[in-house]
Amino acid sequence: MLGAMQDWPLRIMRLLDHAEREHGGREIVSRWADGTTARTDYAGVARDSRKLAQALERLGLKKGDRVATLAMNHSRHMVTWYGTIGMGGIIHTVNPRLFAEQLVYILNHAEDRVLCYDAAFQPLIDALRPHLTTIEHYIVYDGPNGDFEALIAPESGDYAWVEGDEREPAMLCYTSGTTGNPKGVLYEHRSTVIHAMAEVCPDIFNLSARAVVLPIVPMFHAAAWGLPFAAPIAGPKIVFTADYTPSAVCEVLNDEGVTHTAAVPTVWLGLMQYVAQTGSGLGKLQLVTIGGSAAPRNMIEFFQSRGIEVGHAWGMTEMSPIGTTGARPHNWDALAFDEKIDIIAKQGRAPFGVEMRIVNDEDVPQPRDGTSSGRLQVRGPWIVQRYFKEDAPAVDAQGWFDTGDVAVIHPDGVMQITDRAKDVIKSGGEWISSIDLENAAMLCPGVAEAAAVGVPHPKWDERPLLLVVRTAEDAVTADAIQAHLAGHVARWWLPDEILFVESLPHTATGKLLKTALREEYRTYQLQVA
Amino acid sequence: MLGAMQDWPLRIMRLLDHAEREHGGREIVSRWADGTTARTDYAGVARDSRKLAQALERLGLKKGDRVATLAMNHSRHMVTWYGTIGMGGIIHTVNPRLFAEQLVYILNHAEDRVLCYDAAFQPLIDALRPHLTTIEHYIVYDGPNGDFEALIAPESGDYAWVEGDEREPAMLCYTSGTTGNPKGVLYEHRSTVIHAMAEVCPDIFNLSARAVVLPIVPMFHAAAWGLPFAAPIAGPKIVFTADYTPSAVCEVLNDEGVTHTAAVPTVWLGLMQYVAQTGSGLGKLQLVTIGGSAAPRNMIEFFQSRGIEVGHAWGMTEMSPIGTTGARPHNWDALAFDEKIDIIAKQGRAPFGVEMRIVNDEDVPQPRDGTSSGRLQVRGPWIVQRYFKEDAPAVDAQGWFDTGDVAVIHPDGVMQITDRAKDVIKSGGEWISSIDLENAAMLCPGVAEAAAVGVPHPKWDERPLLLVVRTAEDAVTADAIQAHLAGHVARWWLPDEILFVESLPHTATGKLLKTALREEYRTYQLQVA
Repeated sequence: MLGAMQDWPLRIMRLLDHAEREHGGREIVSRWADGTTARTDYAGVARDSRKLAQALERLGLKKGDRVATLAMNHSRHMVTWYGTIGMGGIIHTVNPRLFAEQLVYILNHAEDRVLCYDAAFQPLIDALRPHLTTIEHYIVYDGPNGDFEALIAPESGDYAWVEGDEREPAMLCYTSGTTGNPKGVLYEHRSTVIHAMAEVCPDIFNLSARAVVLPIVPMFHAAAWGLPFAAPIAGPKIVFTADYTPSAVCEVLNDEGVTHTAAVPTVWLGLMQYVAQTGSGLGKLQLVTIGGSAAPRNMIEFFQSRGIEVGHAWGMTEMSPIGTTGARPHNWDALAFDEKIDIIAKQGRAPFGVEMRIVNDEDVPQPRDGTSSGRLQVRGPWIVQRYFKEDAPAVDAQGWFDTGDVAVIHPDGVMQITDRAKDVIKSGGEWISSIDLENAAMLCPGVAEAAAVGVPHPKWDERPLLLVVRTAEDAVTADAIQAHLAGHVARWWLPDEILFVESLPHTATGKLLKTALREEYRTYQLQVA
Repeated sequence: MLGAMQDWPLRIMRLLDHAEREHGGREIVSRWADGTTARTDYAGVARDSRKLAQALERLGLKKGDRVATLAMNHSRHMVTWYGTIGMGGIIHTVNPRLFAEQLVYILNHAEDRVLCYDAAFQPLIDALRPHLTTIEHYIVYDGPNGDFEALIAPESGDYAWVEGDEREPAMLCYTSGTTGNPKGVLYEHRSTVIHAMAEVCPDIFNLSARAVVLPIVPMFHAAAWGLPFAAPIAGPKIVFTADYTPSAVCEVLNDEGVTHTAAVPTVWLGLMQYVAQTGSGLGKLQLVTIGGSAAPRNMIEFFQSRGIEVGHAWGMTEMSPIGTTGARPHNWDALAFDEKIDIIAKQGRAPFGVEMRIVNDEDVPQPRDGTSSGRLQVRGPWIVQRYFKEDAPAVDAQGWFDTGDVAVIHPDGVMQITDRAKDVIKSGGEWISSIDLENAAMLCPGVAEAAAVGVPHPKWDERPLLLVVRTAEDAVTADAIQAHLAGHVARWWLPDEILFVESLPHTATGKLLKTALREEYRTYQLQVA
């Protein structure tokens, strides 16, 4: 007796259909890089998406074909997502901040047939173009040519979305790992719709019809954390901006009455400095979601002390991307300010749809006791099963995806990332968090940057080596750093040696390139061993 | 390339698994009819559900078998839902307020093998039992025998839920229509999980980990509007009460710090009078959801004037049951008090997952202009496809389910029920709302109750006849009522005749029994025709 309730596949276009029907006149605002503002609404995005779907079919695209974007956030980018998915295609968002060789690899590997891009990326496109083997059509969003508007203008908009199985692919995002070639995560209609339904809930993005949401996180970064899919469910006003300078962010927050926003810590760091310098207000802001990397404590305090809630989120491209969010616990109102900050400074709790556990080196699940640490594994309907064009599953026999992070889980279910699994230093069977060691070192006056890596040790297997870049003004000594560290970490965590270096290597997105450091110091002989 | 994301079927037991894992210690409180209070938590409900699943298997129940309940709201009732579903069974909630012959029909038609019930219903059970043909086990929840606890006590709780397809059935609820035999709606795992995910969102029940939710709506009434499935997603404290007297409701609201509650208007009417008499406060109440029948304007004002939001909901058993909710529009904060009441007094907007339209007698969709009325039709993943044991679909060729209601939809998407389709009076091709006419009549001093029915008319096809029960104190005349009505409805809506009657017939749930009235007055000859 299957199917006594209706067949109603979880297809992405139903999100936009709903918004057009129930929130059609709600504004979608785009602040362009040149400071001008364009206004449309859900009905306008739906109409233009139908016209783009027609135009893509006119260009010869078929179901399953890929359309790439190299673009910041704006309504034409949103139209490209829905228009491509609506004609049965797969929207492929590409991160323009990657190295050129990675971009060439990704665009060729995806076999994209169309590339839509912002005029600001024209120099990058010119450099890439000779190496791209599958792109047939280059379409610029803005600037004097106005290709995009010209492309859709002749179409009628009289179009019915391509239907199909809810497990069909709809979107492609590549991860920019620190080793090997980037890998593509192929989101499905179903995974995206379930993820979007989860996101609007009070303990994730808390989106209602009354919200005004500004996704500062780029649409090429894990699908702007899914906000362009979640928003149509609830019907908030959407504000896009292509300008990330603190003054522009502050202006758009105030001008458009933004209540909900989301971005990586770097953006908020700039905004905090700007607010401190100018005394600017933050308008109607209610909830700031911070993710991508850990939110520093003083950033959380900055917002919470102004009556603005902080949602600290952890996730990854492989997770669509929501893994955990810093949901306020049931006794929130009874907590002291510092207790609240303590909770939000951790990575938060798993929503319904994310199963989460930590395991040791033998894959044995570890207790949620707040002290046992282990490799963080996840399972759920919006988590990757296998990468694009890969036959092998990305999960183990029980369906667990290993996130590559090391974490503890507290008894209240709050998860705390302690390290990347590859970066953990394994000393005598115990784990030393390289991140904790680095963070402690960077609190020492005179230390500009620090990196901890494990190097071979005859007795302990590995021991920590600390690499330090000094500040320009200071000539801090190794002894002074050791003395400082002794006040912050366990005695057996203290590095066996401290080396001063001129600089440290970084990835394109600004993270420490630990693989290069591990390779460089793989055979390093500790002086004291 | 299907299935690049994980297989993770939307099975109901994953809701409880999530709550046990992430909100295990959050309280579930039951206030019994005798005034005593029992406390457990999500982990306790999960443990007892596993034990019940084992016990049901011990009794010989197999996948797909039905377990019936005749019970008010309490944690053992919740355990029965999850324990039955967890062993692959179908939980069948039966409304004890139905007539005995309906109960016998329903219990036999469902072929229930087990019946769990509250001791308070023992006399009803004793009367029904000789007529029940399939029940093998009668299990009482409370009282001196304590069958239920004795049943699960010997089990270990070491049990893995029965897995299966997400389209498998999990729950059975019969509708108590006013004509023919009751019909069973067979909810699926998938439909229930998607419905639950929608319900926690800000514009429906707005459930977070910080909420304390009191579902006053009975678990036998459209699954307590889905709250026992939605709550485990967000982890609110749940409060159940078996005592619906206004003083008990007010006490439990205050004692348990209830923030969110849901019930039919009758309950709130009693509470409003109690609060007026005693001056009692309403504790921490934030959101009151009113559904089942239309919420009167003064009831909405009562809560809104106290800073408590009202969610006016419309739905039906065939819809799991959420159809629309009185979601506050984007410009809510800028509205005057009366404008807010105007909006909430209507039935609200469709959430993502409900497609809604109105059609005329030729099934032509009507515009959302706030004046065109039509039969209200719906489509979506939690809406019935066909009734239990019926071969014929309950929907038309395009998948639309006809709700039997007549409505207008306003340009902002807010739906307003104007009548039941069967009760509309069709005069000269135009529709007169019998409900509007009755409501206008009941505002006339001296009118205790009124019913409008269409009776045959040679020229206009049908014309309204108004049946009036006078108040004890008054002898209001037909002319006075007509004069009153002239100030409230269009001239051509005025009843052709007014008849005074001693009483009007009602259904078991207190609604006017229009079928009986229509039958009685089917051949009535209007005096003025």
